[in-house]
Amino acid sequence: MKNNQLLLVSRPMGTPKEANFAVQSTPIKPLNDGEVLVKNQFLSIDPAMRSWMAEGKSYINPIQIGGVMRAMGVGLVLDSKYPEIKAGEYISTELGVQEYSTLYNFTSSQRLGVQSYVYSIKENNLPLPTHLGALGIPGMTAYFGMLAVGKIQAGETVVISGAAGGVGTIAGQIAKIKGCKVIGITSSDEKCQGLLHDFNFDYAINYKNPQWKDELMGICPEGVQLFFDNVGGDILNTLLGCLSKGGRVILSGAASQYNNMAFMRGPANYLSLIVNRAKIEGFVNIDYYHQFDEARNEIKNWIQAGLLNPDNYVVKGGIDDFHAILIDLFAGKNLGKMVMELQTLN
Amino acid sequence: MKNNQLLLVSRPMGTPKEANFAVQSTPIKPLNDGEVLVKNQFLSIDPAMRSWMAEGKSYINPIQIGGVMRAMGVGLVLDSKYPEIKAGEYISTELGVQEYSTLYNFTSSQRLGVQSYVYSIKENNLPLPTHLGALGIPGMTAYFGMLAVGKIQAGETVVISGAAGGVGTIAGQIAKIKGCKVIGITSSDEKCQGLLHDFNFDYAINYKNPQWKDELMGICPEGVQLFFDNVGGDILNTLLGCLSKGGRVILSGAASQYNNMAFMRGPANYLSLIVNRAKIEGFVNIDYYHQFDEARNEIKNWIQAGLLNPDNYVVKGGIDDFHAILIDLFAGKNLGKMVMELQTLN
Repeated sequence: MKNNQLLLVSRPMGTPKEANFAVQSTPIKPLNDGEVLVKNQFLSIDPAMRSWMAEGKSYINPIQIGGVMRAMGVGLVLDSKYPEIKAGEYISTELGVQEYSTLYNFTSSQRLGVQSYVYSIKENNLPLPTHLGALGIPGMTAYFGMLAVGKIQAGETVVISGAAGGVGTIAGQIAKIKGCKVIGITSSDEKCQGLLHDFNFDYAINYKNPQWKDELMGICPEGVQLFFDNVGGDILNTLLGCLSKGGRVILSGAASQYNNMAFMRGPANYLSLIVNRAKIEGFVNIDYYHQFDEARNEIKNWIQAGLLNPDNYVVKGGIDDFHAILIDLFAGKNLGKMVMELQTLN
Repeated sequence: MKNNQLLLVSRPMGTPKEANFAVQSTPIKPLNDGEVLVKNQFLSIDPAMRSWMAEGKSYINPIQIGGVMRAMGVGLVLDSKYPEIKAGEYISTELGVQEYSTLYNFTSSQRLGVQSYVYSIKENNLPLPTHLGALGIPGMTAYFGMLAVGKIQAGETVVISGAAGGVGTIAGQIAKIKGCKVIGITSSDEKCQGLLHDFNFDYAINYKNPQWKDELMGICPEGVQLFFDNVGGDILNTLLGCLSKGGRVILSGAASQYNNMAFMRGPANYLSLIVNRAKIEGFVNIDYYHQFDEARNEIKNWIQAGLLNPDNYVVKGGIDDFHAILIDLFAGKNLGKMVMELQTLN
């Protein structure tokens, strides 16, 4: 049996190019004790992938040149020599952009690049991609960003950038569940409609409309109490001028900047933090790892009660389609978490 | 009796020019009920003056064109028709760049542009400029910035930019009193020596040395826990790359940017807030106004116990020297709070 893998063969300058990747076919070796063989079915396509490809340590180590492109995924356990994982189970962890993964050393926190995150999907009445979205890392980011870091209160005005993405759609719905007035910022009128009708946002703004700031201030003339930022750049800068007194900005990511690290732009408006007695705070979801199960249970309950829509944006493709799907992600094509349904190459 | 006043006659572009100001001589009118006549003796020369001259509301209203240049000051009450203030007392409030001030409407919070801040200097065993420095607004900024916002703890590593200025010299000494390791950043070797020998800093760094970041990381390889920023620009950006996990940045001001508002630069390094789980927080001292007396008492006790050196940088001059002194402030000539000892024009 052969495993087709997508390797990162060079570090991209700016937007990743097809030539930064190469397909490699390798035989699958028999399992050693402690190892697990997984058939990869769904891969999570994340804005953070761009930072993993860059040199230099961010919150995790970079992908090595010649190594398999990193990706979280959900797969079916085909075979296991690790007692706690059985063949026939589904598992979610860092699987990589490849058709099969041989996982090992489950007890070591050093095994996984993304995080020591292995999660066995015992019950399976939700679509598998949900475990990469609402119940996966994006859901954890939204949950802990909004609740543990942002400490949102009922009645607060909450704005979310990158609102149509994997983190944004969940973050907005959590804020709504908690009684906030929720405004999503996204990049097309079509996605605005999706946020309003599919994801329960109160308002949605297309930032490609030149009047979008006026539109925002019309919706919340009293200012923004919490801004959950997935995008950075001009949107962050504009929002800094829209904060209420004591406003908070939670930095969840900076998708607008990931392809442009060498010319990163800081928010020139940052002195409004003084005028508004406001703050910007960064966080990393893995700091809340020991509470992930608890959070997942609460989100699952919300889904089952019909309060939270976990829909993802699932695209079928082989590993040789990965580059095109990643580009679609950066172009903002997805409404909901971008997930690749992996098809085996011929 | 005549009063010589310095008027703001046009808004500066970039660094203020002498032509932005004009001297005017006006007669002093007899006092009405509720008014107080003050002979202005010391004026506080502040980086924030630049923002007061700009159009558009910052944390306070801009100075009006044709109005007296705003300044905090200490003066002698010559005459009073306000029962709670007596002739012969010293008073600290917004006096303006003029030789005499007629103050009125003490009970209204709208009277004063800087803040509803009138403070009668009942006891006077400290040099008068102290009431513009350690016991004045810079002292309050340092005190509440470090303690109420920064919440410094003994043993923490604290870095202060603009360390040789009015806020910086006090902020550093407060952090030292609270048991922190205190590092000051300033713009000359001479001021570094002053910070170490006169103001009790543990370390002082001249940011004009190209290796200053390495020097800083050599002093605190474990990173910076609290950065108290008076300067902004490149220094803020560099420090964002030096924070420890959970580090805090307190924004007290941005002296490097005040002359350059149209081309404000944001901290491009701001994503290090995510990696470091760090935050940037702004504050305005007037929010702590009701605790000023308490803070002043504590600072006075520290001064009297020899724990805090309140020395200011006092320069004599007439109102026509104001522009040159302000330029010296922006050039960083002062070690300690810049104070102008006002001399009457001939």
